[in-house]
Amino acid sequence: MAQDSEAAGARAERLARFRPASGMVTPRFSGLSSFMRLPVLDPGAAAGAVEIGLIGIPFDGATTNRPGARLGPRALREASTGTRALNHATGVAPYALAACADLGDVPVNPVDAAETARRIEAFYRPLAEAGIVPLTVGGDHFVTYPVLRALGAARPLGLIHIDAHSDTDDAQYDGSRLTHGTPFRRAIEAGVLDPRRCIQIGIRGSMDAADERDWALAQGLRIIAMEEVCARGLPEVAAEARAVVGEGPTYLSFDIDALDPAFAPGTGTPEIGGFTTREALHLLRALRGLDLVGADVVEVAPSLDPAGLTALAGAGIAFEILCLLAERVAARA
Amino acid sequence: MAQDSEAAGARAERLARFRPASGMVTPRFSGLSSFMRLPVLDPGAAAGAVEIGLIGIPFDGATTNRPGARLGPRALREASTGTRALNHATGVAPYALAACADLGDVPVNPVDAAETARRIEAFYRPLAEAGIVPLTVGGDHFVTYPVLRALGAARPLGLIHIDAHSDTDDAQYDGSRLTHGTPFRRAIEAGVLDPRRCIQIGIRGSMDAADERDWALAQGLRIIAMEEVCARGLPEVAAEARAVVGEGPTYLSFDIDALDPAFAPGTGTPEIGGFTTREALHLLRALRGLDLVGADVVEVAPSLDPAGLTALAGAGIAFEILCLLAERVAARA
Amino acid sequence: MAQDSEAAGARAERLARFRPASGMVTPRFSGLSSFMRLPVLDPGAAAGAVEIGLIGIPFDGATTNRPGARLGPRALREASTGTRALNHATGVAPYALAACADLGDVPVNPVDAAETARRIEAFYRPLAEAGIVPLTVGGDHFVTYPVLRALGAARPLGLIHIDAHSDTDDAQYDGSRLTHGTPFRRAIEAGVLDPRRCIQIGIRGSMDAADERDWALAQGLRIIAMEEVCARGLPEVAAEARAVVGEGPTYLSFDIDALDPAFAPGTGTPEIGGFTTREALHLLRALRGLDLVGADVVEVAPSLDPAGLTALAGAGIAFEILCLLAERVAARA
Amino acid sequence: MAQDSEAAGARAERLARFRPASGMVTPRFSGLSSFMRLPVLDPGAAAGAVEIGLIGIPFDGATTNRPGARLGPRALREASTGTRALNHATGVAPYALAACADLGDVPVNPVDAAETARRIEAFYRPLAEAGIVPLTVGGDHFVTYPVLRALGAARPLGLIHIDAHSDTDDAQYDGSRLTHGTPFRRAIEAGVLDPRRCIQIGIRGSMDAADERDWALAQGLRIIAMEEVCARGLPEVAAEARAVVGEGPTYLSFDIDALDPAFAPGTGTPEIGGFTTREALHLLRALRGLDLVGADVVEVAPSLDPAGLTALAGAGIAFEILCLLAERVAARA
Amino acid sequence: MAQDSEAAGARAERLARFRPASGMVTPRFSGLSSFMRLPVLDPGAAAGAVEIGLIGIPFDGATTNRPGARLGPRALREASTGTRALNHATGVAPYALAACADLGDVPVNPVDAAETARRIEAFYRPLAEAGIVPLTVGGDHFVTYPVLRALGAARPLGLIHIDAHSDTDDAQYDGSRLTHGTPFRRAIEAGVLDPRRCIQIGIRGSMDAADERDWALAQGLRIIAMEEVCARGLPEVAAEARAVVGEGPTYLSFDIDALDPAFAPGTGTPEIGGFTTREALHLLRALRGLDLVGADVVEVAPSLDPAGLTALAGAGIAFEILCLLAERVAARA
Amino acid sequence: MAQDSEAAGARAERLARFRPASGMVTPRFSGLSSFMRLPVLDPGAAAGAVEIGLIGIPFDGATTNRPGARLGPRALREASTGTRALNHATGVAPYALAACADLGDVPVNPVDAAETARRIEAFYRPLAEAGIVPLTVGGDHFVTYPVLRALGAARPLGLIHIDAHSDTDDAQYDGSRLTHGTPFRRAIEAGVLDPRRCIQIGIRGSMDAADERDWALAQGLRIIAMEEVCARGLPEVAAEARAVVGEGPTYLSFDIDALDPAFAPGTGTPEIGGFTTREALHLLRALRGLDLVGADVVEVAPSLDPAGLTALAGAGIAFEILCLLAERVAARA
Repeated sequence: MAQDSEAAGARAERLARFRPASGMVTPRFSGLSSFMRLPVLDPGAAAGAVEIGLIGIPFDGATTNRPGARLGPRALREASTGTRALNHATGVAPYALAACADLGDVPVNPVDAAETARRIEAFYRPLAEAGIVPLTVGGDHFVTYPVLRALGAARPLGLIHIDAHSDTDDAQYDGSRLTHGTPFRRAIEAGVLDPRRCIQIGIRGSMDAADERDWALAQGLRIIAMEEVCARGLPEVAAEARAVVGEGPTYLSFDIDALDPAFAPGTGTPEIGGFTTREALHLLRALRGLDLVGADVVEVAPSLDPAGLTALAGAGIAFEILCLLAERVAARA
Repeated sequence: MAQDSEAAGARAERLARFRPASGMVTPRFSGLSSFMRLPVLDPGAAAGAVEIGLIGIPFDGATTNRPGARLGPRALREASTGTRALNHATGVAPYALAACADLGDVPVNPVDAAETARRIEAFYRPLAEAGIVPLTVGGDHFVTYPVLRALGAARPLGLIHIDAHSDTDDAQYDGSRLTHGTPFRRAIEAGVLDPRRCIQIGIRGSMDAADERDWALAQGLRIIAMEEVCARGLPEVAAEARAVVGEGPTYLSFDIDALDPAFAPGTGTPEIGGFTTREALHLLRALRGLDLVGADVVEVAPSLDPAGLTALAGAGIAFEILCLLAERVAARA
Repeated sequence: MAQDSEAAGARAERLARFRPASGMVTPRFSGLSSFMRLPVLDPGAAAGAVEIGLIGIPFDGATTNRPGARLGPRALREASTGTRALNHATGVAPYALAACADLGDVPVNPVDAAETARRIEAFYRPLAEAGIVPLTVGGDHFVTYPVLRALGAARPLGLIHIDAHSDTDDAQYDGSRLTHGTPFRRAIEAGVLDPRRCIQIGIRGSMDAADERDWALAQGLRIIAMEEVCARGLPEVAAEARAVVGEGPTYLSFDIDALDPAFAPGTGTPEIGGFTTREALHLLRALRGLDLVGADVVEVAPSLDPAGLTALAGAGIAFEILCLLAERVAARA
Repeated sequence: MAQDSEAAGARAERLARFRPASGMVTPRFSGLSSFMRLPVLDPGAAAGAVEIGLIGIPFDGATTNRPGARLGPRALREASTGTRALNHATGVAPYALAACADLGDVPVNPVDAAETARRIEAFYRPLAEAGIVPLTVGGDHFVTYPVLRALGAARPLGLIHIDAHSDTDDAQYDGSRLTHGTPFRRAIEAGVLDPRRCIQIGIRGSMDAADERDWALAQGLRIIAMEEVCARGLPEVAAEARAVVGEGPTYLSFDIDALDPAFAPGTGTPEIGGFTTREALHLLRALRGLDLVGADVVEVAPSLDPAGLTALAGAGIAFEILCLLAERVAARA
Repeated sequence: MAQDSEAAGARAERLARFRPASGMVTPRFSGLSSFMRLPVLDPGAAAGAVEIGLIGIPFDGATTNRPGARLGPRALREASTGTRALNHATGVAPYALAACADLGDVPVNPVDAAETARRIEAFYRPLAEAGIVPLTVGGDHFVTYPVLRALGAARPLGLIHIDAHSDTDDAQYDGSRLTHGTPFRRAIEAGVLDPRRCIQIGIRGSMDAADERDWALAQGLRIIAMEEVCARGLPEVAAEARAVVGEGPTYLSFDIDALDPAFAPGTGTPEIGGFTTREALHLLRALRGLDLVGADVVEVAPSLDPAGLTALAGAGIAFEILCLLAERVAARA
Repeated sequence: MAQDSEAAGARAERLARFRPASGMVTPRFSGLSSFMRLPVLDPGAAAGAVEIGLIGIPFDGATTNRPGARLGPRALREASTGTRALNHATGVAPYALAACADLGDVPVNPVDAAETARRIEAFYRPLAEAGIVPLTVGGDHFVTYPVLRALGAARPLGLIHIDAHSDTDDAQYDGSRLTHGTPFRRAIEAGVLDPRRCIQIGIRGSMDAADERDWALAQGLRIIAMEEVCARGLPEVAAEARAVVGEGPTYLSFDIDALDPAFAPGTGTPEIGGFTTREALHLLRALRGLDLVGADVVEVAPSLDPAGLTALAGAGIAFEILCLLAERVAARA
């Protein structure tokens, strides 16, 4: 009992320590930009101190189309200073549920994808071992692969993957296998994802060939194309997503190009006909209660968007995901 | 009888005088930019001449986030040169129903909110006394407070408030009470709004704290969050708005950030997940027949929107509101 | 028999020759920008070689509002390099169904609309005679008129016209009859369109006067305003469009301002309250199986859109239309 | 004497009436945008009231490259609200020297250059006859031709022409003679310019052919290419300009593309290697005391310049020219 | 001796601690953006630890023209991540000469200039007392006034002020005395500047009236207008600046609008005809060896500059100034 | 003799065949964008047909700062459509001197620098062997290294390198040796550049460390920093460049960041204080008569420059260099 209340006290203290700066006291445009205006913590000091770590991976060296997602973490930090403490729609107050901090950026090598993958995996492994739930901001979608290697090392994960593209290519350009078009194929091959517990939502646009899709389906992956989303409606889609991943540990990956280019023009491979932000928020809110062990928001390329819509949307999506993660942390605390 | 037909003749003459320049004769990009290409009139000459006055308030000195709404009136004048004489959807021809003119800008003091509030109130009071219906273009949302003081001086008004934020904060930054986050609290305190005849539609996003909302609800204000709008649909929401304000004199305030940032990126505090312009138009068209004594469109900050979408949307919204006001004027003429 | 298989062989060879460059081999941002990365062919060599010709008409000298659509073909060529070989939603692989090539631009005279009209008609006439289906990229909407003169010379055509504006004005500025507000009136007067087989979808916004609409309705044209689209839903609208044009030869004209400005800000006369790209794609996919003898995408003015959304949307729309045309070609091959 | 002092009194009254609004009283971003925040006057009322008329000609229908200069007058009106009453460098206070007003825009026909030329000439002729000095804001450079026809009708004028291009082509596109590449050839042919009193400064870039230059030189025109400007320095160039035009009536035409694109990116045919604004101001200040009967600033195309530099530069150049005109008016008053 | 070497050792340690992150190890686009990628330190911990403090003041509530400078510190932090450790031109390695840190932002009240002035002064006073040299990034130019109050409290300072405007107005809008047009008048009145040791360089553009200048000259201030700079050359101007301020304590204030708008478009009151960045760097390098007790770079308003030139220039200017300050610190260490 | 005149005839025919499309006949904004509107030729067909090949290398996978130069060739092709046939300043008509064609893009692998280097070298080697002079458009500066390997395989080359950075780093990020900061070190190590015949002009900005420079100087390279350029003047600098490279075969490499960011904001590592375009053109024109065996323009990253200045400058620089190459070709023909 005493022990419990001591633990509760320590937890309360931690929660009090890791609060974002309030916009009612200092304006949102002031101060250094950290994710959500949260305290910044050295990743080495995170174990035992925080429960959710927000991490940037400024790498786009695996991009096959228009580059610029390496500038995504910086843009999202700035845009996220506009998010506040309380989720209007769900009532969730994430910082009251989980101790959150900005753990900085993974030290990438912008010209070497293989080396960067090793560094990412090395960065995430101790966090995973310490039970810290990472919320990653990319970077291109390639970065999800080494993150999954770290988080899924113990047992394969389920996946909810919201995107315009399946990213299950095998290779491009005569044999390149480490691109932002291949992370989920690599992760399945590496055994860190369980394809039968994987679902992709919002896939659309034209394809170079049907191979990518055929391979994925053959593994048992479930693909809900954008047209199916429209036909069946979000509640049904969300229900199927919950069914596919079940109660096991699950990763959530949100590629900003899942949104329509009107809502997120700053991304390397935009595809018309995507989600509105309203739909994306609704979809995410329908995923409460899952065992989410990590999540990411990737492919924000701010130079391609002079009005800053994409980082704004990315920050809002990241906040909504943070609420999901915080509830899951609190449920297990 | 003779008197009536004389009055009718005078009215017809007035209506003929206050017509916007036609784009079929001189191109819309030519000539000086007035609101809707209407004639410009000194406010001192408005009494007895016009029935609706379009007025700019280029003030953003109460903005707590990204500034720039002081440039809103200028941008809306330019964008509004694209609006025409006949509302395609409703068939309303506003300039055939009411004499409208551009009454210029209130002479603001950009570095003094309290003084500017006094100037605004002084500008609107004689118009209100002369029965001229003002359609205001802001400026940040703070400007609505002194406008309400002038229009509601005789009796408290009802309010239909379409916005992403409630703007019912008490104070920010250790005591500042005149900000664009407080106008409706100030107006209720001043007795110029009747909170039980007030409704807010489209509120969303994250909050710093729940106080703002709790205070408003305690006054009797009705808040329909964006999620409720989605769940119930616009017809039902509009019906409730009509029921809340009833047949009494009512003010309509449209904050451009009610729209989703994809439709209106140029605003200081954008929140994803908002209205489309199509929904906004539908909502406004469902408000025909109310006793609207004034209205505004605020928070257009054009520098934040290099494609000019926000001023375009603001001008379209303003035209739709103008149709509502013109019908109300004609109904009472 | 032998002859047939020879013909089939020749056709297969042709189809193999006119394939877009694959993004899996050379990146989409590399190489010269042709429409869809297709081979470029001199129009004089098109007869007997290709079945669908993609053609630019970089003319905006009939624009009465903001200019810039003359830069549309160049912007669409670049944006279209992002389209791929297989339509995700419908499964159509257009380049396997029809031999397609970029036939370059019509040699316009930017300061002479009448002369340009003659050149356009002269450019399209031999293509029409050779049975090549043209997919045109404008340019302002005026260019549709001379294209219709060429394609409808043999017999009047039906029309599915998706747009914010009817473009059936008679004259502007004291007598100018060749503007981008008049092409469909001119085409009906010229007898190349059959007004009873014409339908316009998405019309909205304010009007200078009702004449334009009244004239069109008097000719038997069917107009489905945006409000009616919303009220009845796309399936019903598409069904009516199919019924109006019937089985006869039909032209499809897509003005990019049919889309909402959030999806296509780069156009001369934007009107809020328009289609989303998702709706536009759905509408187009509901038009499969019609006898489409030509189509266009017009009014993309890229300078007005620093994020490049409009050309992106235009390219996606053009690809979707290309799939319709390719199916029709294959059905008759 | 009495008469003189009466005249002086009337003049003082006029000067007092035509003052720009002060930015010390109402902020520069407020109010309707007229040129220099000057009063707006109907051109029909200008005779006897004002001495310098600022006039917009929003026409770009003769543009052979990127369009958009039709939006120039509107953009310059807005940017010119930042100019003030007193020239810091020369000490000239133009509004104390000459009565100035914004006379609005010429009613152009955007799709008909020949008709627009007639309208421009008709607009300027009575002003010229009333001795009003016009300062024109374009529009593309074609508009200078009809202005010169009106101002030079009585006797041929001298010309100081600051530009990257000579604009003395004969015809383009197989015979089009009314383009923005031909105005000075047309004006010389029409006898309204005296080629031996004409000088062009800043010509540079690549040429399609040498004809244009050879023809001009054969007429006796003096061309100082940018390279010669650099080699000889501005004082010497200005001195030669003064010598070429002498004491006779002279027109000053400033094409904004004379400036380097870094200073004026928003123009249809930018050429690198141009003037800085500092050099342009120096050059203009060295032209004091000439008999300037009119002037223009043309080719500002604001859509091509999201930062607004071009209109800003255009407004500053226009103010500097206005000072020249005002001194000339005062010298003759 | 021992003591000295101990002090030297402590200093070396300090210098080693306050080093910017190297771009050769972690890419410049990665990590949180602090000024120059320097360590961030709480201002309360600065005394005894650092010698130069970089401080943001995100306030633009005293701006009378286009706002946005409140977003300047954030933009400069980001742009300054591109500056490196060694000044190429002068060979100065500032971080080897002085311990520098980012001390964060002053907690401003965006809607209250007087209160913000109090907060700024209170923030700087202890730093001044601890002998820390502040390098401030604004914010509008008003912020210089309270900084000068703190730094000049002990004795009046000399001033080198590089700007397009004198900012010595008395009041605007009927009595407002705390605007960004008045800081130097207020500072002289407050006795914290010695006007005979003040020099302004680069003043230009048009003026509302001559009062502002006349008052300044009457106080003994030296004004070198842009035209005089051009006529005399930078070496002579710099020599005069050195002579004016002499050997006493001096403040250096750099308004980014001193630069030409081509080099710094993102500022509220741009004036054509300004300095190039090359000239500005040359001028600053000619100021080595002065007793600089503080400096600032103000008026960067990034929303007005989609290409980011202004923050880039501001960061480069700030680095150059930092080198001056570091040399001065080292000379006195 | 007969043989000679036959050869001359063949050459004349070739020159006639490889002419850019004239803007006097078809507008510059029409048609597919090739470099300078030149004919496009398969590189395999270039030998014996053309003398100068314009080639794109859309690769930026070695960029350590902001990416985007992979989009450079496409942007330069479009901007170069504004260049014409005759150099105004020098009188050179390059297409009359040498047969020029657009040879398309090297088939890069965007995620593999080493493989791309091999492909580039393989692409250029046969061109070098056929005596075709390549004018390359990057891509980041890394691409120069494999080009030099191909061109300098027979004997080491001299180099005139105009840039803000020396690009002679050894390695970054713990050992990466193939970046855009290392090409000239790699080329010297490979023996394809003779360091004593190499000169760098315009180097400036801050440095991470002095190593890069010290190594280069130790090899015998001559570095003229921007400050020395300013102090000595361009004629002297050009003279020294000519002296350094002498009469031997020489390569000319122009990094667009040599220009000041005001003239070229769209580049990954901008440095204030650079060349104006006017100075760059002067410098290049002073290099006539050298034995230039190849040249490039690199680091144009168009997404970072919404006004398109950088591609415009790049195209102008490329045209000027083309004139140098054409004169050299003609001199040896």
